[in-house]
Amino acid sequence: MSKNLTSRAEDYSKWYNELVVKADLAENSAVRGCMVIKPYGYAIWEKMQAELDRMFKETGHENAYFPLFVPKSLFEAEEKNAEGFAKECAIVTHYRLQNDPENPGKLRVDPEAKLEEELIVRPTSEAIIWNTYKGWIQSYRDLPLLINQWANVVRWEMRTRLFLRTAEFLWQEGHTAHETKAEAIKEAELMNNVYATFAENFMAIPVVKGVKTESERFAGAVETYCIEALMQDGKALQAGTSHFLGQNFAKAFDVKFTSKEGKQDYVWATSWGVSTRLMGALIMTHSDDKGLVLPPNLAPNQVVIVPIYKTDEQLEEITKLANLMMSDLNAKHISVKFDSRTTLRPGAKFAQHELQGVPLRIAIGPKDLEHGTVELARRDTLTKEVIALDTLTSTVEGLMIEIQNSLYKKALEFRDSHITLVDSFDDFKTVLETKGGFISAHWDGTAETEAKIKELTKATIRCIPIDEIAENGTCVYTGKPSKGRVLFAKAY
Amino acid sequence: MSKNLTSRAEDYSKWYNELVVKADLAENSAVRGCMVIKPYGYAIWEKMQAELDRMFKETGHENAYFPLFVPKSLFEAEEKNAEGFAKECAIVTHYRLQNDPENPGKLRVDPEAKLEEELIVRPTSEAIIWNTYKGWIQSYRDLPLLINQWANVVRWEMRTRLFLRTAEFLWQEGHTAHETKAEAIKEAELMNNVYATFAENFMAIPVVKGVKTESERFAGAVETYCIEALMQDGKALQAGTSHFLGQNFAKAFDVKFTSKEGKQDYVWATSWGVSTRLMGALIMTHSDDKGLVLPPNLAPNQVVIVPIYKTDEQLEEITKLANLMMSDLNAKHISVKFDSRTTLRPGAKFAQHELQGVPLRIAIGPKDLEHGTVELARRDTLTKEVIALDTLTSTVEGLMIEIQNSLYKKALEFRDSHITLVDSFDDFKTVLETKGGFISAHWDGTAETEAKIKELTKATIRCIPIDEIAENGTCVYTGKPSKGRVLFAKAY
Repeated sequence: MSKNLTSRAEDYSKWYNELVVKADLAENSAVRGCMVIKPYGYAIWEKMQAELDRMFKETGHENAYFPLFVPKSLFEAEEKNAEGFAKECAIVTHYRLQNDPENPGKLRVDPEAKLEEELIVRPTSEAIIWNTYKGWIQSYRDLPLLINQWANVVRWEMRTRLFLRTAEFLWQEGHTAHETKAEAIKEAELMNNVYATFAENFMAIPVVKGVKTESERFAGAVETYCIEALMQDGKALQAGTSHFLGQNFAKAFDVKFTSKEGKQDYVWATSWGVSTRLMGALIMTHSDDKGLVLPPNLAPNQVVIVPIYKTDEQLEEITKLANLMMSDLNAKHISVKFDSRTTLRPGAKFAQHELQGVPLRIAIGPKDLEHGTVELARRDTLTKEVIALDTLTSTVEGLMIEIQNSLYKKALEFRDSHITLVDSFDDFKTVLETKGGFISAHWDGTAETEAKIKELTKATIRCIPIDEIAENGTCVYTGKPSKGRVLFAKAY
Repeated sequence: MSKNLTSRAEDYSKWYNELVVKADLAENSAVRGCMVIKPYGYAIWEKMQAELDRMFKETGHENAYFPLFVPKSLFEAEEKNAEGFAKECAIVTHYRLQNDPENPGKLRVDPEAKLEEELIVRPTSEAIIWNTYKGWIQSYRDLPLLINQWANVVRWEMRTRLFLRTAEFLWQEGHTAHETKAEAIKEAELMNNVYATFAENFMAIPVVKGVKTESERFAGAVETYCIEALMQDGKALQAGTSHFLGQNFAKAFDVKFTSKEGKQDYVWATSWGVSTRLMGALIMTHSDDKGLVLPPNLAPNQVVIVPIYKTDEQLEEITKLANLMMSDLNAKHISVKFDSRTTLRPGAKFAQHELQGVPLRIAIGPKDLEHGTVELARRDTLTKEVIALDTLTSTVEGLMIEIQNSLYKKALEFRDSHITLVDSFDDFKTVLETKGGFISAHWDGTAETEAKIKELTKATIRCIPIDEIAENGTCVYTGKPSKGRVLFAKAY
């Protein structure tokens, strides 16, 4: 397969699809809309998981595991939630195959093995979890209940794209229960902040924190907090959401607690999640026409060493040196791979590591051996420098931080230069079509206007920013009064 | 709920079921046969996962993720495998719900949203993975392919028990591809050895390594390696399996490679897995009538500190001391929990930590403050000692190793004293009914005899031990010649 990618300018969507496959991140499977996450892609996801898991535990959460299936009667208990997911859920109806009498060697569903009640493959787990919490919560002493689950979920989407929208995806879903409304809101906000911190500090992706409008809310939520990122093509991507669920699920599943004062009340709830969709955000925030660009925090190999040699003696000497370098770098918790494959020439290795986004490449050739030097090549800037071997460890340590920060800064500058304030609907449409990005505009607060703008422009309200500044204005579409700007964008 | 468990002598099975629930490890869910793994149980499973994952990576394996669903046509491609799982698989037939016109407020399966091809919820992933490998393997350069997946799988078992046999369970499944038969066999053996090392060194569970007879083999395997453990009630438990799959799946999915010499050949395969069933093995190997007993390696909290006080001043002083102790112990990578709950008396805390198997309890009361001492209580031996505070860290460090080793030794002595050599079928039946355990006996090597013995005694051949000593003898049932003993037992 050719390693050359379609350029972003030529076809952004094609560039993305090719990159995901050629960089060995994921591929489509034989199951409609379901992906295979390949080892290299999964290694990046594992790094995200490890950091998020650490952050969840640091904020007092524990992991648990709930069933994959939701009986239909539980699924439909919280009406809005059910309505929101009913149109895209995989349903198990039978539990046995049998030999097909009409097709020898083939199997068919055994019609006698029909389930009494259909099982929904979880599209999200509020229903099965709140049905379980009913047994766990009696008193204020059982609260707060702070639980997270790492799991697969299934939503039978009609149009799918690797990582961005797949029928099955991996995610974590937090589900918490609280004594008071205020405490639950605080939790939902806290977890949205955890996601923002993770996206910015770990993934080097700047995000806007905000709340969703009613029509964009999670089905069953009272308030949906979110982090919104901006991709290089000017489209927004919802990178994580955290929901204040009020007492909706507690009422649907009859989960009450006795307070310190002996009063009975329904419990207050939150849920929050991020998914393998973050892989899409990562790719589309940092990568370029040569392939993936990874922030050091997320790179399975932060550094790769490529030997350049003609003789076996040279290779032997370079290998000795590489081993020393690796042990020094490993001691500083920097992961290094020595690419000693004999089946590929250095140029082909360079191209592969560029395609796969290894942050830093070290090349060592015979001249370097002579002069006590190595060549460093940064993936993010595509710049090279020759440095003295004895400064290697400290230089690389510095570069890991420098690259991480520089990627964030670059993405932030792009994002900030793509938030445009507009005050007329003509400007709105022009900016959307020519420049893209977030459009900061006044909106009259009605679902009708929101729907109309979406219909006319395909732009949706990504969020009402948390740090919105009070500003009186008039709706960009209806001219009706507004008290602050919201962010519109076309979105993934 | 009472914390008192049914004793093992009274009803072993009831003791197990109660322990799992009362120690907060897992519980049954609203979905038939599917369990909820509670935070305390999941924390133990996470420790197993972390260590296994480390061992897999150390032996060159990478993680990846494959779809939850297997299209029926792929599922049936490897005939024996399909036959083995067809009778217990959950089948997705539809992808949408709709409002039920006959029951307002209820949902029903939308009859128009029928899948063209049914999807099987994976009972194991050979089919979907080998269908994927077809695209990944062309040449010897692509081999070996060493991949592991952490996933949920579903087998629609009729009789289920928490951890031991559940419709959905969590596991890891390794799937590797090799150039030669010898290399694949070596891999299958290596991974069985990894499981044995993990069970013995990490879980403190002695195991017998062996191979399964043909009738007990994994559906689709040429050889199944296994590790077999012995529970306290004298029943065996298969704790892990590793399969040499020959070229069966390569042939079913047409996966060929070009060798160095330019020849085309089918790839050789292995698969291997352990599951949340290991939680059952852990519980039934070490626990007692007071509850769970955990080896320090698997304990979410290795040490708990319980304050004993009458006044707030005493509590304050104990808290200060506990904080110092915790920071010293944490520095030695020992996890400690300070149980400062004011809603429970010390006695109730002691009982709970015993029930949950915390390896070491430290109690500090006013007299200890006076004398510079603390009281240590070991969970495994239920013994107590008072020690000088200034020897605490080194004593606890030593005890962590001592408890881990002592649990293994105890389990090993029990296991070894429950392997009985028998040479007549009468002895076979007597030993099985009175003492249980493994019965080491000669067998004529036929499936008929194996089936007959199973029918008459419920004992199965657990394995042909790897370290079997050649010994001429006669079959315990038929009197026909045999060249070595195999291990029989009743099993979970």
